[in-house]
Amino acid sequence: MSSHSNMHTLDIHSATTEDILSLENIRSVLIRLEETIVFQLIERAQFARNARCYSSDGFPELKEREGWNSSWLAWFLKETESTHAKVRRFEAPDEYPFTDPSLLPKPILAPVTYPELLWKHSVNVNDQILKFYVDQIIPDITRTLGENSDDGHYGSSAIRDMEVLSALSRRIHFGMFVSESKFRAEPAAFIPHILTPNRDELAALITKPAVEAALLVRLAEKAKVYGQDMDRPGANAEEREKERKIEIDTVVRIYKTFVIPLTKEVEVDYLLTRLDGVSQDEIDKMLATNTFVH
Amino acid sequence: MSSHSNMHTLDIHSATTEDILSLENIRSVLIRLEETIVFQLIERAQFARNARCYSSDGFPELKEREGWNSSWLAWFLKETESTHAKVRRFEAPDEYPFTDPSLLPKPILAPVTYPELLWKHSVNVNDQILKFYVDQIIPDITRTLGENSDDGHYGSSAIRDMEVLSALSRRIHFGMFVSESKFRAEPAAFIPHILTPNRDELAALITKPAVEAALLVRLAEKAKVYGQDMDRPGANAEEREKERKIEIDTVVRIYKTFVIPLTKEVEVDYLLTRLDGVSQDEIDKMLATNTFVH
Repeated sequence: MSSHSNMHTLDIHSATTEDILSLENIRSVLIRLEETIVFQLIERAQFARNARCYSSDGFPELKEREGWNSSWLAWFLKETESTHAKVRRFEAPDEYPFTDPSLLPKPILAPVTYPELLWKHSVNVNDQILKFYVDQIIPDITRTLGENSDDGHYGSSAIRDMEVLSALSRRIHFGMFVSESKFRAEPAAFIPHILTPNRDELAALITKPAVEAALLVRLAEKAKVYGQDMDRPGANAEEREKERKIEIDTVVRIYKTFVIPLTKEVEVDYLLTRLDGVSQDEIDKMLATNTFVH
Repeated sequence: MSSHSNMHTLDIHSATTEDILSLENIRSVLIRLEETIVFQLIERAQFARNARCYSSDGFPELKEREGWNSSWLAWFLKETESTHAKVRRFEAPDEYPFTDPSLLPKPILAPVTYPELLWKHSVNVNDQILKFYVDQIIPDITRTLGENSDDGHYGSSAIRDMEVLSALSRRIHFGMFVSESKFRAEPAAFIPHILTPNRDELAALITKPAVEAALLVRLAEKAKVYGQDMDRPGANAEEREKERKIEIDTVVRIYKTFVIPLTKEVEVDYLLTRLDGVSQDEIDKMLATNTFVH
């Protein structure tokens, strides 16, 4: 284990493929993202539901002035992801845009040379993430302010929406690093089920029920601590629970019913095309030796 | 007190001047911003110092491709604030841009009618905030990763920089709401010192040492709780202190040496022009009755 929590972030200049794909690094990124997700959910939960921001006709000005036919949030995502695309955010193997890539500008910076990490793939589940976020997460975390509350803080809530979505997207797509890492460690176990193909067997190979159970315990603890009311020093533990910023159950449910299953789907989707373009010779070698052949 | 922590945020559609300028509301906004500032400092602290992002010649591509003569961070601020300006963020009386307003686009939305809150003023201390942030805060919170560490995560760190800066700016400029609220409650106490003018007397009128002391205690508690290592369930309190995400002293020092004094400066600067354009008749009435005359 690293000697400082900050060491969750590898140096982009010097990290090797082995460093990045080590289960220790992957685990540390995924665990650190739990904090970010809980923090940013709490930040969003201080504002009302503001349903108007999520429907395609909520702000007619966006259509009239910007020719934009989708929602307020989708407009914020497009604008913000356009800025980030210019500085090559989506060339990183763990960053995927919510906006249709054809609407995003080209980078103004020369490309970074990343080590070869992921196999060529076309996985992007951001549409599913956005839908679940708008339909389930937002109503859940804003319910205490009223079922259909609207406080007019549309910009503030959209900025927090983007933070949550970006962290969820990175968390879920990071599953491909798990798949790649496990595939490289034991290719002969995966190859037959990729060739069949058999989703269930692949899912079984990457699922560790004990790790998932530990995750939910750790997450509940983080939600408990970060979500308590800290505004009145001297308040005891019971009083701090009364004015929570977010419910522990809500955070755990988001992971249990959504983040974990969708990550698994991403992991399997990625594996299913993992042998596309790999020669029969290489496949045979990996099957015979159970060693990753590059 | 509100019955739920989420009630820190007033409804923009229905809040009256009295609601917004009540000391209870102001206090609740300022206290809630402590969480945001601590959270976002922790988010930034996971990345290296990345000094290249803060110097005007760190990325020659920005000059060559975008005609931009300032830093990577300033470019991110300009791009992001341009998006936000389109949806009228800076028409809100508690939002001030870091970017030269002449570089920002006009809003595409019709203006919101805010209640009359602040007197006409030209206070904007974002240059000071940015300078202190780059010179002091960034080296402080990233020191454990090395004095001049660079991990290549320039986009990720800039996004977190903007979150911290935006929260600090809102916190510090919110001092003007404190000034306005206190001026309205007791105009006769302020008017002589505005007319003299006497900064020290004005500062004394808005300073509450007991409130500041309580703030620092509360802030230390928040930094202690949010900054602890929560990644290993079962770890005891001592172990959780060993791998802190941010030092308690650092957070307290940021407030004590910077946020609190600069807020006071903003409060006094605002008061000094509070009578500009107010008629002598109104001033006399306020002095005689010690009641705010609008």
